[in-house]
Amino acid sequence: MATIVFPNEHSPVEDAESLHKSFEGWGTDEKSIITILGHRNTYQRQQIRKAYEELFQEDLVKRLEKEIHGEFERAVYRWILEPADRDAVLAHVVIKEGKNYHVIAEIATVLSPEELLAVRRAYLLRYKHSLEEDVAATTSGHLRQLLVGLVTSYRYVGEEINARLAQSEAEILHEAIKEKKGREEEVIRILTTRSKTQLLATFNRYREAHETPIYEKLEDETSDEFHKALYIAIRCFIDHTEYYELVVREAIKRRGTDEDALTRVIVSRAEKDLRDIKELYYHKNSVHLEQAVAKEISGDYKNFLLTLLGKED
Amino acid sequence: MATIVFPNEHSPVEDAESLHKSFEGWGTDEKSIITILGHRNTYQRQQIRKAYEELFQEDLVKRLEKEIHGEFERAVYRWILEPADRDAVLAHVVIKEGKNYHVIAEIATVLSPEELLAVRRAYLLRYKHSLEEDVAATTSGHLRQLLVGLVTSYRYVGEEINARLAQSEAEILHEAIKEKKGREEEVIRILTTRSKTQLLATFNRYREAHETPIYEKLEDETSDEFHKALYIAIRCFIDHTEYYELVVREAIKRRGTDEDALTRVIVSRAEKDLRDIKELYYHKNSVHLEQAVAKEISGDYKNFLLTLLGKED
Repeated sequence: MATIVFPNEHSPVEDAESLHKSFEGWGTDEKSIITILGHRNTYQRQQIRKAYEELFQEDLVKRLEKEIHGEFERAVYRWILEPADRDAVLAHVVIKEGKNYHVIAEIATVLSPEELLAVRRAYLLRYKHSLEEDVAATTSGHLRQLLVGLVTSYRYVGEEINARLAQSEAEILHEAIKEKKGREEEVIRILTTRSKTQLLATFNRYREAHETPIYEKLEDETSDEFHKALYIAIRCFIDHTEYYELVVREAIKRRGTDEDALTRVIVSRAEKDLRDIKELYYHKNSVHLEQAVAKEISGDYKNFLLTLLGKED
Repeated sequence: MATIVFPNEHSPVEDAESLHKSFEGWGTDEKSIITILGHRNTYQRQQIRKAYEELFQEDLVKRLEKEIHGEFERAVYRWILEPADRDAVLAHVVIKEGKNYHVIAEIATVLSPEELLAVRRAYLLRYKHSLEEDVAATTSGHLRQLLVGLVTSYRYVGEEINARLAQSEAEILHEAIKEKKGREEEVIRILTTRSKTQLLATFNRYREAHETPIYEKLEDETSDEFHKALYIAIRCFIDHTEYYELVVREAIKRRGTDEDALTRVIVSRAEKDLRDIKELYYHKNSVHLEQAVAKEISGDYKNFLLTLLGKED
């Protein structure tokens, strides 16, 4: 479940006018930006962008870039985009920086086939390259094979499971993980082409046969980008709420907070399942996520994330 | 250009009734099947299927399977399907038989990104597996990498060319082809991710620098499925009309005609560019394609293909 309740009725024109007012005079009224944008859903935010453009002949996103800064700006910028476009931007940052490729594995495995396709379309539109083209051009070897396979997948969605296949592919995965090398291509084939339902069946057979979840052995081997992406893809397939709770927990635990990860999870999941992530976080840490976040970060950035986390003013 | 002119006005109900009549009594009236179905476009054929189903509570395709046989049946069956569905069936035949994988390379490179996506959707719907899943499960090594990359691609479509990249990737391709091994992964990356416009620029730089078309060196190495698929993908990217003319020419030239290939090209291209293929065939062979086909095959199969080739009764 989502964390925020959005108004059923809202006026994009009034919102655009209020935002414009918040930019005027000395200093920017950040509180108003947070109050308005932090309480509008994807569709409403796009309507506000349109209204703002029409009223003031100016791109709201460009104006925001001038008015606000730092982590706050980055979070607002990501929030204001449509989800597919936001994921295209997140993927592009990874490609440009040449690190954190696991974020691409996360996007490609959490989304439904149609949502992933929307990200590919958004990426093409923005960058005039295909997502797989840029991933392939900046990676190599098994990491390339895995990521290109994940982002280009268009999986079967449905309940049909082939039990015999789950059994045999659980064994292939076990051999690959045990032997540590030489079977990577089969692992990649399985993870990049099987349906999520089928993969879950395979992982369940693995756990039954070997009395340990499949990702456990991989957990200690995430030192290179390939194994990290592999580990994260598997975690996301199994339970992405658990995975996101882990990301948030580690982002907070780290010396000098991982703002990128924190923003990514909160912004991407606020309209989806952030409430579940919060509940799981409380269950696993005995601290409310809002409290943990409030202790870690500060200023407008903090106020904005807390708004997305559902904290009422 | 297409070979056949379709009636602007037609009655799906009358067509369905005429077809039904042609099935009744002793023997089937093949001539009427050819006259009707051979002169209806994709949309009209789907309307006829619908009308037939409603009128006679029977699937027209299933009924045709009982009424007609052999190569004639196969050609009519392929013709009656929507193009994306037909290509899904063609790909599935390859996967089931475990041979002629170059047909998948042909489909994936000739179609536009959106058309290819439609084939993937049709495949999912029919077989409850993804196309890439079945390709990956029945192939291995470089053939798998190439084909999975080709069928999952969703390329940039547009005029933008990176000239520097065309130059450098032309050299990568040259090294790979000259050295014969060890650079396959780079060749696969380039062919499976770059836009068609960009690939054409790369192939042109190659031809300028080495005074020979890129596929020439590959021509003699098509003994294994990987090199054959590679060769065919490149030919299709460069000029698929030329490629199809070659397929038809070889299908006819072979001892004991390659009916599969002949049917595939004629059925798939009749509504698209079969007229261009015919003109090129005449230009290269000084024989009309209709004449060559008429000499090679016989009976209803012959009459049907000649109808699709635009021969007027």
